Amino acid sequence: MRELTILKIGGNVLDNSNILKSVLDNFADWSENKILVHGGGKLASLLLKQLGIEPVMKNGRRVTDEKTLEIVTMVYAGLINKNLVCQLQSRQCNTIGLTGADGNTIPAIIRPVKDIDYGFVGDINPVNINSKLIISLIENKFVPVFAPITHDQNGQLLNTNADTIASSIAISLAKDFKVKLIYCFEKNGVLSNPEDDLSVINNITESIYKDYKDKGIIHSGMIPKLDNAYAALKSGVAEINICGPEAFSKEKIITGTTIIL
Amino acid sequence: MRELTILKIGGNVLDNSNILKSVLDNFADWSENKILVHGGGKLASLLLKQLGIEPVMKNGRRVTDEKTLEIVTMVYAGLINKNLVCQLQSRQCNTIGLTGADGNTIPAIIRPVKDIDYGFVGDINPVNINSKLIISLIENKFVPVFAPITHDQNGQLLNTNADTIASSIAISLAKDFKVKLIYCFEKNGVLSNPEDDLSVINNITESIYKDYKDKGIIHSGMIPKLDNAYAALKSGVAEINICGPEAFSKEKIITGTTIIL
Repeated sequence: MRELTILKIGGNVLDNSNILKSVLDNFADWSENKILVHGGGKLASLLLKQLGIEPVMKNGRRVTDEKTLEIVTMVYAGLINKNLVCQLQSRQCNTIGLTGADGNTIPAIIRPVKDIDYGFVGDINPVNINSKLIISLIENKFVPVFAPITHDQNGQLLNTNADTIASSIAISLAKDFKVKLIYCFEKNGVLSNPEDDLSVINNITESIYKDYKDKGIIHSGMIPKLDNAYAALKSGVAEINICGPEAFSKEKIITGTTIIL
Repeated sequence: MRELTILKIGGNVLDNSNILKSVLDNFADWSENKILVHGGGKLASLLLKQLGIEPVMKNGRRVTDEKTLEIVTMVYAGLINKNLVCQLQSRQCNTIGLTGADGNTIPAIIRPVKDIDYGFVGDINPVNINSKLIISLIENKFVPVFAPITHDQNGQLLNTNADTIASSIAISLAKDFKVKLIYCFEKNGVLSNPEDDLSVINNITESIYKDYKDKGIIHSGMIPKLDNAYAALKSGVAEINICGPEAFSKEKIITGTTIIL
């Protein structure tokens, strides 16, 4: 079966130009089929502040009102996406930048209001991803670069979590490719001691995860990441790794955490 | 020969939501192969001002310093492009938004400094356009939507005139398609009396154009538009029309100016 690697890079990787450079150098060198998914970084919050709009976060997630949606569309789909496309093009990596609206690749529904109204936030389901365009681009040696923006198919753009976009694309392509999904973020992997950046768990089974979660060792932002990861593994994604940019250095001393069932 | 229509919409069309809606309604209905190219509009200048940066224009063209390039990349490739893609998707028009960096479709060179340093502005040549991806998308029933941003293939995004992008794409596709190029802007066409919006010249030959230019009837921004148009006609583009949004209303009372050799 054909292999495909999906790399998701988070905000903290985007915010450090030296780290970003080494990750892009590495990614461009991969000879296999590949997709890049990127998050937002500090730029959107910075621009909101410059324009006098105070970013609103609830439960660690951004509340997206109309003005915030404009800003994240500009920053994610414009500035960050096109700079990544352009940087990778200069490394002979034939990228093409996409949002979920482009080619209707990722249709979403606006998140229903329960306790919290998150505004223009889009929830997605892997079964709705239109993988035909993505597969066709890959087969023609293009490298898709996804920004975390989707749409409701009725003319409304929506802000969608980049981790979820990465795992949803991974699941939707798992029947056509042997998919490896890598989450690259600011830590070196899943840590057994949150205070010690070197305490990376090399392999984490679902039962170890549950045990660590019960003990409070794994908490906050890592929980949806791992829940996403186990859901993806159970839906046919072949391999999932959570790592830091260190894993992309030439030395590769710390290779991150492999998620296993 | 297969037919292809390229519609370029300018800033003033983008800035009026009612006018834009009727143009998009019309464009979405066209059954032929099609491409949309859009300009910038007032949004970039507005955002620059909000951020305390004074827009600099020289000879009617924007000078693009580093900060301005960031803003136009956000506004053109992010906000405007993705909203157009999303609006057209809601009209069952399967759009995909692109800059010249995406798929390396439009490589450019930074404009050499002569009398004026325009900064990060990219000059393009139709022979360098990589039409393979564009043709492949069209053949697969996607509708490309181009933002006026290109790149130098060395990691630098560049700001490029949208009229030039439209005519360059038209020329590069003229060997594969019978190309019709339409410039839709704020006037109803080329006017014989600049003070009278109804004085539209239905057909303008190159000799009439030169005569009107000598007499000062045609001047400023219309000159590069028409120079571009005649160059495109001479390079194999089948038909070129300059019109206002009125030409896209149901009544189609004023149909604009057809450029003929």
